[in-house]
Amino acid sequence: MEEQDRRLKASMDKIKQKIVVLSGKGGVGKSTVTANLAIALASEDHGGKVGVLDADITGPSIPKMLGVRSHGLAMGPPGVFPALGPYNMKVMSMDYFLSSDEMPVIWRGPLKSMAIKQFLAEVVWGDLDFLVVDLPPGTGDEALTVMQSIPNIGGVVIVTIPSEVSQIVVKKAVTFTRKLGAPILGIIENMSGFVCPQCGAETNIFKTGGGRKIGEQLGVQFLGRVPLDARICDDSDQGTPFIMQHPDSLAAKAFLEIVRNIEKQIPRQPPNTKET
Amino acid sequence: MEEQDRRLKASMDKIKQKIVVLSGKGGVGKSTVTANLAIALASEDHGGKVGVLDADITGPSIPKMLGVRSHGLAMGPPGVFPALGPYNMKVMSMDYFLSSDEMPVIWRGPLKSMAIKQFLAEVVWGDLDFLVVDLPPGTGDEALTVMQSIPNIGGVVIVTIPSEVSQIVVKKAVTFTRKLGAPILGIIENMSGFVCPQCGAETNIFKTGGGRKIGEQLGVQFLGRVPLDARICDDSDQGTPFIMQHPDSLAAKAFLEIVRNIEKQIPRQPPNTKET
Repeated sequence: MEEQDRRLKASMDKIKQKIVVLSGKGGVGKSTVTANLAIALASEDHGGKVGVLDADITGPSIPKMLGVRSHGLAMGPPGVFPALGPYNMKVMSMDYFLSSDEMPVIWRGPLKSMAIKQFLAEVVWGDLDFLVVDLPPGTGDEALTVMQSIPNIGGVVIVTIPSEVSQIVVKKAVTFTRKLGAPILGIIENMSGFVCPQCGAETNIFKTGGGRKIGEQLGVQFLGRVPLDARICDDSDQGTPFIMQHPDSLAAKAFLEIVRNIEKQIPRQPPNTKET
Repeated sequence: MEEQDRRLKASMDKIKQKIVVLSGKGGVGKSTVTANLAIALASEDHGGKVGVLDADITGPSIPKMLGVRSHGLAMGPPGVFPALGPYNMKVMSMDYFLSSDEMPVIWRGPLKSMAIKQFLAEVVWGDLDFLVVDLPPGTGDEALTVMQSIPNIGGVVIVTIPSEVSQIVVKKAVTFTRKLGAPILGIIENMSGFVCPQCGAETNIFKTGGGRKIGEQLGVQFLGRVPLDARICDDSDQGTPFIMQHPDSLAAKAFLEIVRNIEKQIPRQPPNTKET
């Protein structure tokens, strides 16, 4: 195990910024946020220098969303080579090790933690500017392992939907992150309002404003809100992140604003102190 | 441990039907389905004879949705007494053991499994007609423990949203359930289409039809679809399940039809063989 820890540290040391995307409740669009955040970073001037780790062992969906499924992964003396997504993004997911979609991963926590550690230590990430880690919902084994195994996490992005039920779970995610000593970059309110494409009337299906409210309550930056848009789901299903496919949509614009808010807070390499 | 297993079995033997609500992906409305299914059963002629176990240890939301939060739970020689919800429904959740909303449960799998076993063994459920168990997303520790610990599960309800990304994860849930030998009652397609309250135009925000398609592919009954409705989220936040609060809504009617489809498949006590 010490050998693995050493390799893990060496591998992570070659990655300038490690960003973790966390949510309390599931289904708030965490993976969509991860995929689009990675695309936004890679499309700027980090092509080939962005990695995405899908740490959702039992429900991996990043490969589908980024359109990089069913790649046979190459292996070599240094380890497993990640799949290559848009902008030469490096992608690793449990999905690549399952023989079919039907195949469930019926693993208890310790095994899931072991898999995540292997993804960190044995994958040939190489020199990256950013590694974006997509966690499964909640504050369980996967989240703990990621937070405790990755040295120098640059920051945690917390995704929520506006509903009050979600707010309760988001509070837990904030406390969890603080307890583990990682900096919080802020809260994204996803699925915030829906504009009828027919008549333009806005309906707040999952309410609105909850993310900002919780940010203020807990002293966490509010990064912005992304509205519901049927095209986001379509794009995810087709493996083309919506900020690539529909860059002019309200949702894509909102999302890019959020990415800028995140970037402002991440010290560039060599580290400098931008004001947030 | 043997003593606990004995108590668990004795406790479960007093419950006629154990129904488990499972989803692959999070945020598909599993807890909303659980809460409303329990209400529907209790409101028929099972008042006081329905229990709900919130097996989502790190993100419990059932108490909030059923409007039974912050009850101090009574303890006595037979164990912990569950909270009492609408129609004298018996409710147990990790939420009752947390001092504040901010408090996260930072537990690895074995601890979560232990908590669930205690909820099954040490809670004074009494004689029930139905126990509805709400699982956290995925096929991890909580799901495994529930499926392996509860004897004679009457059936598993699988909740999904229509998107393709969700379908992949639903397939895993179906295989998971089959591997563990529990009968599948069927698939519910939640968040299926949205009707603009302003103009009546329908938008399939998360697509539509995926649940039926996957059911056909896997040979699993399709129980029905529930449309998106902003009032569902409002009602959940206010702790009044929407089939109580808005019984005339399209969503409530769809949901009651689903409950009937579920009931058709559950043999009544004393067991008889209704055709499905």
